[in-house]
Amino acid sequence: MRSQFEKEMKNLNIKLIKMGEMVQDIIEVSVQALAKQDLEAAKRVYVMDDKIDELELEIENECMKLLALQQPMARDLRTIGTIIKIITDLERMGDHAVNIAKVTLEIGDTPLIKPLIDIPRMARLTEDMVKKVLDAFTNADTKMAEEVAHDDEAVDEIYEGIYTELINMMIQNPETTKQATNLLFIGRYLERIADHATNIGERIIYMVTGERVEIN
Amino acid sequence: MRSQFEKEMKNLNIKLIKMGEMVQDIIEVSVQALAKQDLEAAKRVYVMDDKIDELELEIENECMKLLALQQPMARDLRTIGTIIKIITDLERMGDHAVNIAKVTLEIGDTPLIKPLIDIPRMARLTEDMVKKVLDAFTNADTKMAEEVAHDDEAVDEIYEGIYTELINMMIQNPETTKQATNLLFIGRYLERIADHATNIGERIIYMVTGERVEIN
Repeated sequence: MRSQFEKEMKNLNIKLIKMGEMVQDIIEVSVQALAKQDLEAAKRVYVMDDKIDELELEIENECMKLLALQQPMARDLRTIGTIIKIITDLERMGDHAVNIAKVTLEIGDTPLIKPLIDIPRMARLTEDMVKKVLDAFTNADTKMAEEVAHDDEAVDEIYEGIYTELINMMIQNPETTKQATNLLFIGRYLERIADHATNIGERIIYMVTGERVEIN
Repeated sequence: MRSQFEKEMKNLNIKLIKMGEMVQDIIEVSVQALAKQDLEAAKRVYVMDDKIDELELEIENECMKLLALQQPMARDLRTIGTIIKIITDLERMGDHAVNIAKVTLEIGDTPLIKPLIDIPRMARLTEDMVKKVLDAFTNADTKMAEEVAHDDEAVDEIYEGIYTELINMMIQNPETTKQATNLLFIGRYLERIADHATNIGERIIYMVTGERVEIN
């Protein structure tokens, strides 16, 4: 029974890592589609998100069955509860990537008002956060989980920079307002993705320690 | 055993309704704080959100224990899975109310660039959606759950109006850009809250029918 449970947990973990990789990909593709104004890639993001949603449901159902059939106790309960929360956060990250794709399609082929440097930087940082936080889960590593919260601060800082830059751009050249607002939203979506990674980090600390924390 | 399970489910339902009411309140308070520029009320939103987070954790733990101890089958599994998802959506709504409060504190006592009419309207609509979707859950009413998705369209429409109005305002009076962007974010937060209510509606349809749907 016990080893059966562990086998199923290992399986869940593999699928969770897979879902995390899909989320890293969708962030990457959505921001690259924006940077290159590749509208076909932007449309692909919608398909990628459907796949993520499917995997979320699959993992969730397996968690439910595991809970119902194996009657796990305290720590295992928290672990499965954590998985259910993690997949929700990952799924929401996918939704934000879709939001980014939506804006990209809205911008279409109208020339970008500025070369994109910080937004792709934010994207890479958030992708790393997703990878790191899932490693933290796999290794029940609270220290690594906390690190993710500090990465979140870095993401917030870049966002603040983007915010100031775009606001000033709108004030100086009102004709840039529409696209600048769109880019502002994209910055916000990436910042939200980083927040979801931080949620996961906090959840992992709760899973390991049983203590509810809010990092930064 | 069975009746015990039903008793616990009824209990969970009561707490869920309670959580929904807390979320309706926090939306109301956050937007009223903005409209009246009542910074004390805006700060209260943070405390209200902590209470919502606590209740989420409490409900979640009870769901986990119920799953582990009562070994519910198919439909009951989906119901408990739905509760776990619902509380996540409700908790995220609370986070968005906090985002609204944050912006309100940022605006502080600098005069509003426009009388707020549409944003409070959006807020009322989203509060009604929260109430309606939890009624839909209690009564396993898929028709009502679908209605919520249509309300979501109404919210999106108001948001589109706000968006156009604020963009034009920024273009015509660049000095309004900072606050107009802030109000734009608030509109977006309310629109996201409505999306969470729609997620819940879709979840309820899945709970009742076993069919995964995406409304609108």
